[in-house]
Amino acid sequence: MSFSYVSHLECPKCQEVYPEHEVQQLCQCGSPLLVRYNLNEIKANLKKEDVTTRKGNLWRYHEILPVKQEENVVSLDEGMTPFVHMKELGKKMDIKNLYIKDEGIIPTGSFKTRGASVGVSKAKELGVKQLAMPTNGNAGAAWALYAAKAGIKATIVMPEDAPTITRKEVAISGGDLHLVNGLISDAGKIVGKLVKEKGIYDASTLKEPYRIEGKKTMGYEILEQLNWEIPDVILYPTGGGVGLIGIYKALLELRELGWISSEKLPRLVAVQAEGCAPIVKAWQEGKTESEFWENSETSAFGINVPKALGDFLVLEAIYQTDGCAVAVSEADLSQAQKDVAELEGNFICPEGAATFAAARTLREQNWINADDKVICLNTGQGIKYPESVDLSNVPLLQPEDVITG
Amino acid sequence: MSFSYVSHLECPKCQEVYPEHEVQQLCQCGSPLLVRYNLNEIKANLKKEDVTTRKGNLWRYHEILPVKQEENVVSLDEGMTPFVHMKELGKKMDIKNLYIKDEGIIPTGSFKTRGASVGVSKAKELGVKQLAMPTNGNAGAAWALYAAKAGIKATIVMPEDAPTITRKEVAISGGDLHLVNGLISDAGKIVGKLVKEKGIYDASTLKEPYRIEGKKTMGYEILEQLNWEIPDVILYPTGGGVGLIGIYKALLELRELGWISSEKLPRLVAVQAEGCAPIVKAWQEGKTESEFWENSETSAFGINVPKALGDFLVLEAIYQTDGCAVAVSEADLSQAQKDVAELEGNFICPEGAATFAAARTLREQNWINADDKVICLNTGQGIKYPESVDLSNVPLLQPEDVITG
Repeated sequence: MSFSYVSHLECPKCQEVYPEHEVQQLCQCGSPLLVRYNLNEIKANLKKEDVTTRKGNLWRYHEILPVKQEENVVSLDEGMTPFVHMKELGKKMDIKNLYIKDEGIIPTGSFKTRGASVGVSKAKELGVKQLAMPTNGNAGAAWALYAAKAGIKATIVMPEDAPTITRKEVAISGGDLHLVNGLISDAGKIVGKLVKEKGIYDASTLKEPYRIEGKKTMGYEILEQLNWEIPDVILYPTGGGVGLIGIYKALLELRELGWISSEKLPRLVAVQAEGCAPIVKAWQEGKTESEFWENSETSAFGINVPKALGDFLVLEAIYQTDGCAVAVSEADLSQAQKDVAELEGNFICPEGAATFAAARTLREQNWINADDKVICLNTGQGIKYPESVDLSNVPLLQPEDVITG
Repeated sequence: MSFSYVSHLECPKCQEVYPEHEVQQLCQCGSPLLVRYNLNEIKANLKKEDVTTRKGNLWRYHEILPVKQEENVVSLDEGMTPFVHMKELGKKMDIKNLYIKDEGIIPTGSFKTRGASVGVSKAKELGVKQLAMPTNGNAGAAWALYAAKAGIKATIVMPEDAPTITRKEVAISGGDLHLVNGLISDAGKIVGKLVKEKGIYDASTLKEPYRIEGKKTMGYEILEQLNWEIPDVILYPTGGGVGLIGIYKALLELRELGWISSEKLPRLVAVQAEGCAPIVKAWQEGKTESEFWENSETSAFGINVPKALGDFLVLEAIYQTDGCAVAVSEADLSQAQKDVAELEGNFICPEGAATFAAARTLREQNWINADDKVICLNTGQGIKYPESVDLSNVPLLQPEDVITG
């Protein structure tokens, strides 16, 4: 038995192949690269029941992850996040089998952790000493903390108006943090120059091939938590789209391994905000790539991505699974965040709330049936987004006061 | 097989016995009550190996928890929190087998969640329609969110200067939140009047008997995660002391069940801040109860408790396990928080950091040996304490700037 059955890297656009034991960034054609495995060997050596009894973190799937030597694994025991049937909210939405997969309950508090754990581990295996990335917050926080654990220097550049809490996560890790008086695109340019001039590892979204492998484990876990029975619909908040790309990749791999039935896949839904919906527009127009969304705006800053490098992969996942793409309003998103907390006790992030708002819309349109098994992905913790809660109506008492009810 | 083998409630001070199927608060003698089980029946019906294959949350131990009907369980899939060997920090501290049990990675982001899940579930089973509690923040947030899920009205009273983020957690749950221009003792008086006049369930610390049962699961999990081998030392940040009381109770129960060896128990260490160390003082003086600590002060607000209702139980746990009590300085606590993030990638809370500072001190004094297996409990997420990180030295770039290294 090998620890990993990784085989090579492959370009999904031009099919060019690259070895996995050397540092690779984008394909020469400009596309992100995907990691391939010897799935037939895994199929012969590993049963899904073997995985189930392992420790409850994402590394239980190590044969289908890209790290070859176990000692290179950089782990904070992340993964196997909560998976809960939401009975009350399901009643209200007339979706009996509504589930949350809660990615807020993971080290660093967002799904970015999965990409960081696998990405940093593989960087360590490849001998990387320094990495650099632009970020709007959560990804930078996750990569900085995992890089610290790995002994890799992390240069993180974020816009001055990115959330303060993520800045603090980078700072306490001892990471090389820089703020920029500009947008994430400005941060990207600064990182681009640094990478080019100093030969530093570029950890920008999809410019390294391994974060997808971390994020695909959300797909493995959902299926394992459903006892390998395929759900009907999975809704994902879509900015860069790596989570959705990863889940689709996971489904194809599980099918090839024979761990799930080959009849149908869940319908994948890309959820965006009305103020930034390039994937929705492309899907509505039947296109295979998106266009840059001008003057994008949404309170769910994690899905404020006007043009994603992997947009064609997101659209492929939607088309291939008979899925769809939906944009939700800021008001619906905010209401969904409240409903989830009041009925189910989860304090979720605005991006996660968007998936519940979208599920309600799709149910109203009968695109989702009342009996469908529906999974909403919450990508981060509400407490990382304190501005999403209004405290203006909270009464202030004096010590001698009395509460009457 | 029963879902729970709960038997009755017992006073650890005067040994008075109470039935568990009615609402109980304190004993008539004023002491907190402890929950007792038919451990012999569990021993005959359940093996520790059975538990290991269940779903990864604290309800896997349901036979040794107080909820009798499964449908009363109010769960967000909480527990089986990360347990990680800290190699690099262990090297620096000369403690080879140093582990973190990370209670920040749980719904609502602190160990209070365990008490809330079990406490609210039992309240639901007892038919409670409204509960009330004073809080410095984290407990109120956890109870409000779980009460929301249970459909129980939660009246939460917190000092005006309690952390804003916990206030927002209560607000988004739809809880009945009140701020008070005073201390937690003032909040306690307001709750006391409400409880007395309206017959509402008093969910104040240790005034309901069931939160201990939630928190004891930390002890079960540590032992399960160590494959039921007893560690040498467990360090716990001690304010109200419920966590330590719970872990000690768990150890005694596991011993009676025969799931762990009966030879020795881990030495339990109560960690406090120098600015609020009533348990440390009592232990140093060989006393069985603590005295009120005047003008207490520490940045680790969760352990700013001048006199705990369960102090005698904490001291008993220390004496019975040959443990000790240690106070750490604010500077050591702050340094430990940085060390953990920079070497191990965990952003922990100040209370959790205190346990690492204490472990270092105890190692220097040879109270901890280099080969000892040592567990530090982190009770909450660093991101709930943003003020603990200083950002004053972060450089601000202009879009055209270049990073040089």
